[in-house]
Amino acid sequence: MSDLRLRLDVAYDGTDFSGWAIQPERRTVQGELETALRRVLRLPALATTCAGRTDAGVHARGQVCHVDVPAAIAESFESWPQLTERLARALPPDLRVHRVGPAPDGFDARFAALWRRYAYRLCDDPANADPLRRHEVLTWRRPLDVDRMNDAARQLVGEHDFAAYCRPRAGATTVRTLRELDWQRRADGVVEARVVADAFCHNMVRALVGALVAVGEGRFDVGEPRRILDARTRDSRVLVVPPHGLSLEEVGYPDDAELAEQARRARTVRGPL
Amino acid sequence: MSDLRLRLDVAYDGTDFSGWAIQPERRTVQGELETALRRVLRLPALATTCAGRTDAGVHARGQVCHVDVPAAIAESFESWPQLTERLARALPPDLRVHRVGPAPDGFDARFAALWRRYAYRLCDDPANADPLRRHEVLTWRRPLDVDRMNDAARQLVGEHDFAAYCRPRAGATTVRTLRELDWQRRADGVVEARVVADAFCHNMVRALVGALVAVGEGRFDVGEPRRILDARTRDSRVLVVPPHGLSLEEVGYPDDAELAEQARRARTVRGPL
Repeated sequence: MSDLRLRLDVAYDGTDFSGWAIQPERRTVQGELETALRRVLRLPALATTCAGRTDAGVHARGQVCHVDVPAAIAESFESWPQLTERLARALPPDLRVHRVGPAPDGFDARFAALWRRYAYRLCDDPANADPLRRHEVLTWRRPLDVDRMNDAARQLVGEHDFAAYCRPRAGATTVRTLRELDWQRRADGVVEARVVADAFCHNMVRALVGALVAVGEGRFDVGEPRRILDARTRDSRVLVVPPHGLSLEEVGYPDDAELAEQARRARTVRGPL
Repeated sequence: MSDLRLRLDVAYDGTDFSGWAIQPERRTVQGELETALRRVLRLPALATTCAGRTDAGVHARGQVCHVDVPAAIAESFESWPQLTERLARALPPDLRVHRVGPAPDGFDARFAALWRRYAYRLCDDPANADPLRRHEVLTWRRPLDVDRMNDAARQLVGEHDFAAYCRPRAGATTVRTLRELDWQRRADGVVEARVVADAFCHNMVRALVGALVAVGEGRFDVGEPRRILDARTRDSRVLVVPPHGLSLEEVGYPDDAELAEQARRARTVRGPL
């Protein structure tokens, strides 16, 4: 029986999830998603793979997953939009599948991804915080200097060993290519980081943000985050900021013809897990 | 001892409040606000008055209140921004006071207001709803035709007896001047109503929205909401939509010189309560 690979574009409010990955006795994004998929597709079992395994409390607006299902499944509904609609009804309101449909040949949500883009949002004026955004914007008690944060951020962009900003995992490399890291103050006063890399190791965005807000509030000088990077060991002065300011916004993939080659490359570099 | 009237600009996420008005054993906006004010100003008692007494679950980004305090209070802190900051620390995260300071002569948050502006937000594409906005955007299962909703809405603007769209209160008029009522579909797909009136009676925005979404989904013809208005009695086909899509966005006041005269006029028209 031949298999069909589906691509799913997923968004969630991470507040009430213990992160992406299935864990016993915990409400997880993967758990809720697979339960809804099994019900709607009437399958006894299936396994999803995602582009970015977000931690507890982290949100996503542009998570991408894949799942392999028997090809015959496509006969059980009229169209992909109809399946999307059924799934919307089966999912809880804090988890949405925006689109579901057949993935192109060679697609792998995790290994074929070229880059991941995250946003981190802070409000440094507690009296003026929007109470309706408090689940996705971290309130910071001290004013932040966005220009200083950008000066420090520029020194981190490029291919580096990010061991100083990662929770290490045995046998896995901590070398990553940070493509973009910049800050802007939005019209509503929120300070927002745009962070793009080929991939991130565990806690990496939240540790980078922790070092840069220390610059923004004047506790670190502008060169400190780069010096910490170069030291390649974790620094207890770097706060790993809370998860609720973080959101996985977008995942980039190559053109369809390049998907399989990109997946092969990524698997080689970062290992089978 | 002379009194000082303070104006407060207030925002809240209505989700976990039983509305504005103090009620025994319930968590209310007024209750939480007065508790924080009493603590920060070290006063045994005070009473706030607001421009729009929102129902349970309704949000506000532009609520305005006043409170009278002994004039000597101003000696207990260095500046109004310092008081705003102290208040921010004393308030829960779902309730914010953006500004606090002395009100101009004749100011009355309720009676001096010229108009109130509300927004109501719906998403008519459940698969594409933003899970992080689900507390402030109502999900609607059927697609809405915004042009039809605007055609129907235009016929409601002006001074009318809105008895058909109000929960009546004995002895109070239901005549209101609806200044604006229009719909737009935002870039993110959310359908948003902008509703401005001199004042609103109870449930009025949510009943008007209920009649207009019936037009938008094709259940009512475009002329029906106006016919219901003219009948001046409540119509069981008009759904009062849920509170969480509704937000008090802004309150308009006249120039300082006109405040007292406007308050006198409003008191005469709408009665002392």
